[in-house]
Amino acid sequence: MTPAFSTNTDKTFRIIPLGGLGEFGKNLMVYEYGDTIICVDAGLMFPEDDMPGVDIVIPDVTYLKQNADKVKGFILTHGHEDHIGALPYILTQINAPVYGTRLTLGLVKNKLRERRLLDKADLRLIDENSSLELGDFQIEFVHLCHSIPDAVGIIMRSPVGNILHVSDFKFDPNPVDGRLTDEAKLKALGDEGVRFLLSDSTNSEVAGFTPSEKELEQVLDELISKAPGRVILATFASNISRVQQVINVATRHGRKVGVTGRSMLNNTKMAAELGYLKPPPDGLLTADQMNYLPPEQVVIVCTGSQGEPTSALVRMSRGQYRHLRIGKGDTVIISASPIPGNEKMIHRTLDNLYRLGADLYYDDLFDVHVSGHGSREDLKRLIELVRPECLIPIHGEYRQLVLHARLAKSLGVPEDQIFIIEDGQVVEIGDEWVISDGTVTSGRVLVDGLGVGDIGTVVLRDRRHLARDGFLVVTVGLDEKTGEVILGPEILSRGFVYVAESEDLLDEAKEVVWNVLETYDSVQEVATHMHTALADFCYRTTRRRPMILPLVVEL
Amino acid sequence: MTPAFSTNTDKTFRIIPLGGLGEFGKNLMVYEYGDTIICVDAGLMFPEDDMPGVDIVIPDVTYLKQNADKVKGFILTHGHEDHIGALPYILTQINAPVYGTRLTLGLVKNKLRERRLLDKADLRLIDENSSLELGDFQIEFVHLCHSIPDAVGIIMRSPVGNILHVSDFKFDPNPVDGRLTDEAKLKALGDEGVRFLLSDSTNSEVAGFTPSEKELEQVLDELISKAPGRVILATFASNISRVQQVINVATRHGRKVGVTGRSMLNNTKMAAELGYLKPPPDGLLTADQMNYLPPEQVVIVCTGSQGEPTSALVRMSRGQYRHLRIGKGDTVIISASPIPGNEKMIHRTLDNLYRLGADLYYDDLFDVHVSGHGSREDLKRLIELVRPECLIPIHGEYRQLVLHARLAKSLGVPEDQIFIIEDGQVVEIGDEWVISDGTVTSGRVLVDGLGVGDIGTVVLRDRRHLARDGFLVVTVGLDEKTGEVILGPEILSRGFVYVAESEDLLDEAKEVVWNVLETYDSVQEVATHMHTALADFCYRTTRRRPMILPLVVEL
Repeated sequence: MTPAFSTNTDKTFRIIPLGGLGEFGKNLMVYEYGDTIICVDAGLMFPEDDMPGVDIVIPDVTYLKQNADKVKGFILTHGHEDHIGALPYILTQINAPVYGTRLTLGLVKNKLRERRLLDKADLRLIDENSSLELGDFQIEFVHLCHSIPDAVGIIMRSPVGNILHVSDFKFDPNPVDGRLTDEAKLKALGDEGVRFLLSDSTNSEVAGFTPSEKELEQVLDELISKAPGRVILATFASNISRVQQVINVATRHGRKVGVTGRSMLNNTKMAAELGYLKPPPDGLLTADQMNYLPPEQVVIVCTGSQGEPTSALVRMSRGQYRHLRIGKGDTVIISASPIPGNEKMIHRTLDNLYRLGADLYYDDLFDVHVSGHGSREDLKRLIELVRPECLIPIHGEYRQLVLHARLAKSLGVPEDQIFIIEDGQVVEIGDEWVISDGTVTSGRVLVDGLGVGDIGTVVLRDRRHLARDGFLVVTVGLDEKTGEVILGPEILSRGFVYVAESEDLLDEAKEVVWNVLETYDSVQEVATHMHTALADFCYRTTRRRPMILPLVVEL
Repeated sequence: MTPAFSTNTDKTFRIIPLGGLGEFGKNLMVYEYGDTIICVDAGLMFPEDDMPGVDIVIPDVTYLKQNADKVKGFILTHGHEDHIGALPYILTQINAPVYGTRLTLGLVKNKLRERRLLDKADLRLIDENSSLELGDFQIEFVHLCHSIPDAVGIIMRSPVGNILHVSDFKFDPNPVDGRLTDEAKLKALGDEGVRFLLSDSTNSEVAGFTPSEKELEQVLDELISKAPGRVILATFASNISRVQQVINVATRHGRKVGVTGRSMLNNTKMAAELGYLKPPPDGLLTADQMNYLPPEQVVIVCTGSQGEPTSALVRMSRGQYRHLRIGKGDTVIISASPIPGNEKMIHRTLDNLYRLGADLYYDDLFDVHVSGHGSREDLKRLIELVRPECLIPIHGEYRQLVLHARLAKSLGVPEDQIFIIEDGQVVEIGDEWVISDGTVTSGRVLVDGLGVGDIGTVVLRDRRHLARDGFLVVTVGLDEKTGEVILGPEILSRGFVYVAESEDLLDEAKEVVWNVLETYDSVQEVATHMHTALADFCYRTTRRRPMILPLVVEL
């Protein structure tokens, strides 16, 4: 896209969602005025099905690099991967201070330490009472409930009015840590006046209020109290609140709790050190204890709620987990919703756990999870508290943004003051006007192994082609002087047919090549016609279209 | 697997699920006694994510080929792809009569005609009152409700007692065609005594009764009556009942109905010809009329409810459908549940339809679909009517079979008379005993283009490898006498790195190859060490593991 706004010297306020994988503005939002750029969050995304081999996806920060001297800081709303996971990649390109609450910075530190970047980063602790001056922005915070403690919304008092950035949140009347979403502060801000509200649209398709964590605790209480043997509960490694609930319930029933899975262990340890997780009175179980204590005294919290192939639960379901063997009498609870796209992996895990004889409680059968995101009534309540002039729905796929927008309209926010923008689109705000028709460079940067951004459209297209139909490499060596064939034709093929059982077909393919060699002379002609003739041959005989690569050399 | 039962000469009764893709017994069930084998259904499955390039999956019928002279017929329960779609492939290997109801055979005929197999097939019409003698089996039928008309259950009176095979079904108090599941016949059979019930487990995770089609009609009525412009409804092409409902509702509101999408058109035409679909009084709209009639007079039924890339709805959502352009004022209804694995494609379609300005009604928001499968209360009612001695839950993934089994147990079917079997497992039945510990050859046969069964584990593994990390082919020609390098090293690579921007890396790779060439002499040694050295090099520099294929030739 044309960087229509690459040099911003005037005094227009700009809001730009940079990078998202269908979920707009989720991973990195830019607020810009004069010489100041404030970034909110710097998260990663996980690759889609059509990105084979890609490990993670991060936002394209070309626009920030073009304006590096303006970037006054990254402000983090909470510690989830999709909000902090791109920091190690982005901070090496744009070195600006990072502001976050204690738990959030704790998670960021772990991440930076793993990549030996901790020394270079300028991390600055804030809490919900902090106040910052960054260029023309005066910034405050508001505590929000989410599925991880220590989440905040960001209040920006700017030359064009107050802006409230509400990332992932819900109104939970009974949060696990007892800290409510700060409605009083939101209402006071509403009284003062909010020009722009940017707010989470993830659950805009879901009716009602998102249930309280307290309701879930009752369900867990019932399941754990009636379980005949061990209880194994899988959830997201970052869901510190869920781990706390399990500890609370288990302790109440005289059970001990163990935690397993690398990321789950790291997060739990860190959260306990920082005081966000209260471990059981006599500590967590060791791997040995999990195995040798009487089953009815044990609850284990682990990763694998999405059927991730290398997670603890999936390895248990395959009988490949060294520390624990699941069998009859064990109760497994999947305390998480499937992330769309993960259903099949989750189903396979459930099937395998049933094969081992376990009792299962999961989403389709039982309410063993509550979302961390507010549903339609939560979204409504926020709008009613804040009474924004304008709304930008963020954090959602397009349909979720649309539904959030319609909800706001039904509450009286005028349609022309609601802006559904996609990544890279710019909302420009003056005192009396708002327009949104420009764009800046934005997009996805793919990370594959050590490569950041080197895998693009071409390589992905090739990978998809190879996945579908494989390849054929045909090598021919011609005598430089006589044009005689002195090497080959040799055909190397994988992924097209089962080579060991396709000798006849490959022999025929060689005949096709010989025909070309007899008809044409120049290396270029031979290569071109070999390609066409082989493509035709493959399609005619198999209805497949392998990638065909001729290598014709003169010797 | 060892074909432990490949020669069955004794008089044991056998039940064998052959082929399924995680959904056991869905696609092909075998009933065997003495010299008689009866097959129920012959369906296809769609490939999983880890089968790139595969078009469809069909059951492995090795066991039937080994016992071809015993096969007395294929009996079809209904006309869905997962019950009839493998017939064109299987009938060319085992030529036996095919029994089906009128609509089912209508669909089979279309399928066989496309592949020029219609002349060779021996199709025999049955209805719910038919009675057949096939070897030692006396066979009758019972009408069942499902999402396609003319579905039947199969009653087999056999030397070991009565067996009831209930495929996809539900108890719908108000089916679209007015024909109820025949409870009286089921009850009468129960009174007579049922030794084995085999029954649909698809919705064993779903509480309650599956809602009636009538309830859905009320929802459609409301949506169509209030729609300001055109209504476009997407559903499965085979869901003739849904098409009928739309015609009924639209006609009531003075709207005309058009049908679009190739498979939807074919099915609708055939069902109308056979009398299973009553078209509107003045016929269906032509493509032209759909476009030029006033929008508020038009309802269109189309394919695409699963976000299938080439379907009518998906092409509409991308603005690439010649016959119809969706825009503001149009109402789109997705009247189908997502098949697990299709969620992302469906979401993308919804997002694009919203971008065009349409109003959407879909699963997550609104009850615009009812399942064709009975839920837990339907399953219970069937068991209560039939009172089987033994139950084999079929048609479901493992967890669904388990839940069906537990349901039956709660109704008094003894645990040791419930058999959860996976594909290829054999249930052997004597007068006084039942065992299930043998297996026969079974599995999946992959169809890719013209190849049936030639793509197996090796090719799939290669395709997945190529998808993830691409390949490197290294060609070197050595002088036969001197061992001198006279060709290459040439490196061809795709899917590994972006070749156009990785010259340095590929030059370094060549250096690695030169090192090997300088160290080793024999062709074999050079090839082996080139492979290892390049693999190490690639992993060290990129953390990727491309497929490496050395081609070392002597000239």
